[in-house]
Amino acid sequence: MFDLHTYFVEKIKHINAALESILKTSGHPDRLLEAMIYSLMAGGKRFRPVLCIAAAEAVGGDLKDVMPAACALEMVHAYSLIHDDLPAMDDDDLRRGQPTCHKAFDEATAILAGDALLTLAFQTLSAIADGNDQQAVKWLRVIQLISHAAGYCGMIQGQMQDIGSEGSRLTLNELKSMHRLKTGALIEVSARCGAELVDADSDKIQLLGSYARHIGLAFQVTDDILNVEGDPDIMGKAVGTDNLRQKSTYPSLLGLEESRTFATELIDNALQALVSFDQKADSLRAIAKYIIDREK
Amino acid sequence: MFDLHTYFVEKIKHINAALESILKTSGHPDRLLEAMIYSLMAGGKRFRPVLCIAAAEAVGGDLKDVMPAACALEMVHAYSLIHDDLPAMDDDDLRRGQPTCHKAFDEATAILAGDALLTLAFQTLSAIADGNDQQAVKWLRVIQLISHAAGYCGMIQGQMQDIGSEGSRLTLNELKSMHRLKTGALIEVSARCGAELVDADSDKIQLLGSYARHIGLAFQVTDDILNVEGDPDIMGKAVGTDNLRQKSTYPSLLGLEESRTFATELIDNALQALVSFDQKADSLRAIAKYIIDREK
Repeated sequence: MFDLHTYFVEKIKHINAALESILKTSGHPDRLLEAMIYSLMAGGKRFRPVLCIAAAEAVGGDLKDVMPAACALEMVHAYSLIHDDLPAMDDDDLRRGQPTCHKAFDEATAILAGDALLTLAFQTLSAIADGNDQQAVKWLRVIQLISHAAGYCGMIQGQMQDIGSEGSRLTLNELKSMHRLKTGALIEVSARCGAELVDADSDKIQLLGSYARHIGLAFQVTDDILNVEGDPDIMGKAVGTDNLRQKSTYPSLLGLEESRTFATELIDNALQALVSFDQKADSLRAIAKYIIDREK
Repeated sequence: MFDLHTYFVEKIKHINAALESILKTSGHPDRLLEAMIYSLMAGGKRFRPVLCIAAAEAVGGDLKDVMPAACALEMVHAYSLIHDDLPAMDDDDLRRGQPTCHKAFDEATAILAGDALLTLAFQTLSAIADGNDQQAVKWLRVIQLISHAAGYCGMIQGQMQDIGSEGSRLTLNELKSMHRLKTGALIEVSARCGAELVDADSDKIQLLGSYARHIGLAFQVTDDILNVEGDPDIMGKAVGTDNLRQKSTYPSLLGLEESRTFATELIDNALQALVSFDQKADSLRAIAKYIIDREK
């Protein structure tokens, strides 16, 4: 059986080292950089960069070939969390049990740290500017994919819809569409970029995109389920909060049982997308199974 | 004599058409896009994109070759204004006589519209992803230049310093350094990108960068001078505001007379950088002279 925990630990070690080296070499450690480091190195799951690496490995590539993309994806994710937590948005004081960036620093610094991480993502993606021509084409394509997924037709649009939907009841399709934009687009592109950068053929890229789309949505569905029936001691955070806030969730729209069925179907579809892949895709298969079995 | 007014009018027409076509084709006109259009099409001077085009023309290039860069530079500028105006930053209600983005919409929308414009800049710069290899190398290099100038070693760092310096007296060197980062870096890179994209040789690129660095600072110095002795009727805004706010400015540190001398020296240096250029650089020369002679 594939040891997913060890796999994650090992990849996270590499990802964190790469992130640290980018942050150390490109500036002086002032308050702005401190805030960037605070949020970027706050111990996230590194789900998007690991997915990017696992997708590259699934088609025979290596971690080294995709590391700038893996780092950029995490920077985009970190910036989006900083801005989502702001008082004008979700107004959250805590993130992963720690004060959010605007609480640990101040609001202006948090806005700028988010802006700086987003900008640094593109600086990182274009850092091979003096490399060879063929490499340049690939990295330009990855910048196109990530900027599209993160932009106003993707993640930012999803956040806008999420804010706009507060207090109103969404339909199932509206809820799916919002999640597809807010988190799904960047998760899908994480897998696609990994595959693109190691020259996977377009069929494989499509399949890995489909895999990631399905696990991205499944992650959201199980998140909602855990908010109803999870163990707060295991999860390290309160449950029942969605219900209190009258948030539209899969359990509230579908019921718990049907939400579980939906999540299982999504994971089945994700695994189905991988049937033509060999054992190099076992990490991706293990990630899919973990999403549905997780208790936190 | 070079007719700078007609030159600007003509270039702005092209730039606005290009910006409109990007905003129209890449999404549905929802509230987020409305806010982006509101700020981007609010009638700015288009100084950075015109500079980019003029630099390209100075080395024999054409507007068409650099238009995505010109548009991206304006998007980065527009995003920075939206975020700078936010309540947590400069807390400005008006920009160019119109309500700022967070006043016309709301704070969350303004933060997201800024984020989306920054992201769209990189989407625009990578849009030739399926073009030829040599083109890709150039655009990747431009993404590197712009992300560096806009990022936490450039514009964002400058804004951070500007916020941090409020109420305290800066030295002349601190003031110069803050401006070099906050506005100078993006202005310099505007000229460089224009030249890079039309294959100027590296000497010319350096000279155009030096030209832009000097006019960028001169612009700031004359801005400070106009805030002391400008005619509010011609300028369309109040004067004397820097003094009321006890802001560190060139006149407050150097006196008016020496500030004028400093601005003249900067413009002389800018013009000096252009001596090896032929009449194709006349637009750049006219821009330099305009900066020091302007009344608004």
